[in-house]
Amino acid sequence: MENKKILVSEVGPRDGLQSIDTILPTNIKKKWILAMVDAGIREIEVGSFVPASIIPQLADTEEIVKYAITIPNLTVAALVPNLRGAMNAVESGAHKISIPFSTSEIHSIKNVKRTHEEMFDEIKRVAQYIQEHDQDTHLEVALATAFGCSIMGEVPEDLVIRSAEKIMEAGSKEIVLSDTTGYGDPLKVKKLIRRLKSTVGEDKITGIHLHNTRGLGLANAFAAIEEGITTIDSSISGIGGCPFSPGASGNIVTEDLVFMLDAMGIDTGIDLEKLFSVRNILSEALPEEPLYGYTANAGLPIGYQPQNKVIN
Amino acid sequence: MENKKILVSEVGPRDGLQSIDTILPTNIKKKWILAMVDAGIREIEVGSFVPASIIPQLADTEEIVKYAITIPNLTVAALVPNLRGAMNAVESGAHKISIPFSTSEIHSIKNVKRTHEEMFDEIKRVAQYIQEHDQDTHLEVALATAFGCSIMGEVPEDLVIRSAEKIMEAGSKEIVLSDTTGYGDPLKVKKLIRRLKSTVGEDKITGIHLHNTRGLGLANAFAAIEEGITTIDSSISGIGGCPFSPGASGNIVTEDLVFMLDAMGIDTGIDLEKLFSVRNILSEALPEEPLYGYTANAGLPIGYQPQNKVIN
Repeated sequence: MENKKILVSEVGPRDGLQSIDTILPTNIKKKWILAMVDAGIREIEVGSFVPASIIPQLADTEEIVKYAITIPNLTVAALVPNLRGAMNAVESGAHKISIPFSTSEIHSIKNVKRTHEEMFDEIKRVAQYIQEHDQDTHLEVALATAFGCSIMGEVPEDLVIRSAEKIMEAGSKEIVLSDTTGYGDPLKVKKLIRRLKSTVGEDKITGIHLHNTRGLGLANAFAAIEEGITTIDSSISGIGGCPFSPGASGNIVTEDLVFMLDAMGIDTGIDLEKLFSVRNILSEALPEEPLYGYTANAGLPIGYQPQNKVIN
Repeated sequence: MENKKILVSEVGPRDGLQSIDTILPTNIKKKWILAMVDAGIREIEVGSFVPASIIPQLADTEEIVKYAITIPNLTVAALVPNLRGAMNAVESGAHKISIPFSTSEIHSIKNVKRTHEEMFDEIKRVAQYIQEHDQDTHLEVALATAFGCSIMGEVPEDLVIRSAEKIMEAGSKEIVLSDTTGYGDPLKVKKLIRRLKSTVGEDKITGIHLHNTRGLGLANAFAAIEEGITTIDSSISGIGGCPFSPGASGNIVTEDLVFMLDAMGIDTGIDLEKLFSVRNILSEALPEEPLYGYTANAGLPIGYQPQNKVIN
């Protein structure tokens, strides 16, 4: 596992903020993003191109994308639910766009009012739009609820695999395995990654999106790394908690994830001490929100030598 | 990993309680232990045979041991720091006694005022006492600070291995790998288990004791299981927190550990719903203490079928 590199893809400004009521001012978001890049983070999902009436917290996504793409060494990702959002994302200059696809069809119908067939068609339209307008834009589709759904419960593995195949046929460049509900366990993570890699191709499933709803987030992340996953989504301070489970955290916590990777000798490019100090921006701007994670509070082990030091 | 069995060894009544100021009344401890056994827990470290002046919270250990050994299907373990404690433990009828050995010598000197050589001698005396008085008593030694020490920092792997060899020579039946300080990571867990198994023997290192100080507890537990560990210490609700790191939890949380194991199809014999209800005893008896863990608050996944149902 040494000499390995993992890309930590920060999703706090999107997945974190969409789960809290407070609307973070645009200038604070910019300061926050800049501080994360300063700590060595190289990919950030900065927002969602959805109507402001649905997620007012992310209404400034266009402005944030336009700002973020001016920061050197940063891949700017945005979530888009449909072609309209994808057009806005591409026009704003986002490097990477991610479409969530609910593997549970009932979840898809309830959340985005689209059946699976309608979603495949929409992905096709987005892929074609990118093909015609900006071929450098990376399109990925997140297999949401891949480990279980809060409406239908268990989601059959075969449905996950079939969905992934159709998504790739529709023109996605990549699949991201997404444990939206925090139902996953390390063994299921390993099994699904293995099956997906053998179905859609080793290099077509490189990322995973995990929630820590039942405390298994980092165990699942470790299992994913053992199966060759090289991009892991996480959120600074686990900001946003989990809308379905009060008291339980949402995304896995970037600080703890980076400590785990760093301790294992994996190169993340991220400076732990600088990363911890990013929490101050959040605690100041969102004083009501709990900040999750253990490592920042416990501190690094005595005598610990971090792998990465970012000197600015 | 399916068809595997893991013994979850509950340490809350010892490691948890010794870290909080409140002295839990003896009758509540008994009720708590009984409720855990009712939920399917089969091994509990119920206390420490140390002077009441040092850990007043565990002053009733003798009474607790004498009570616990009357409960069917329960292995009753107790921590002992020395021969005197071991004699009391054996006389009280404890099935299993555990001696903590600080792999960091400076930690040993500071905590129990004994050098490594003095500890090896003490272990010899305990082993001999057991040999002469009750050969059924299982003696194990916990390699404390095996992943790092809050005084000396990094603890060399070679020192861990050498200590384990000498401990086995001194007459211990088993070694328990112990991450006292929460410095461990999954890769280090795997490496140390492999080296220990090849040194002291596959069947002489079957247990691990983990803290969740930096949030890596369950990732470390999963890594340990992959290396063949079959006994994992944990504490209900992570009770006791961590004395060294305010705000960080102490032992890994039994509820989350059992959910992880159960979800992976591993047999623990523990009924998750009954386990969750044990929290009520603690929240009532220790209203000031935070209860850790995620699964009990989030609830089991929709449609989830637990592996184990304990019918009483």
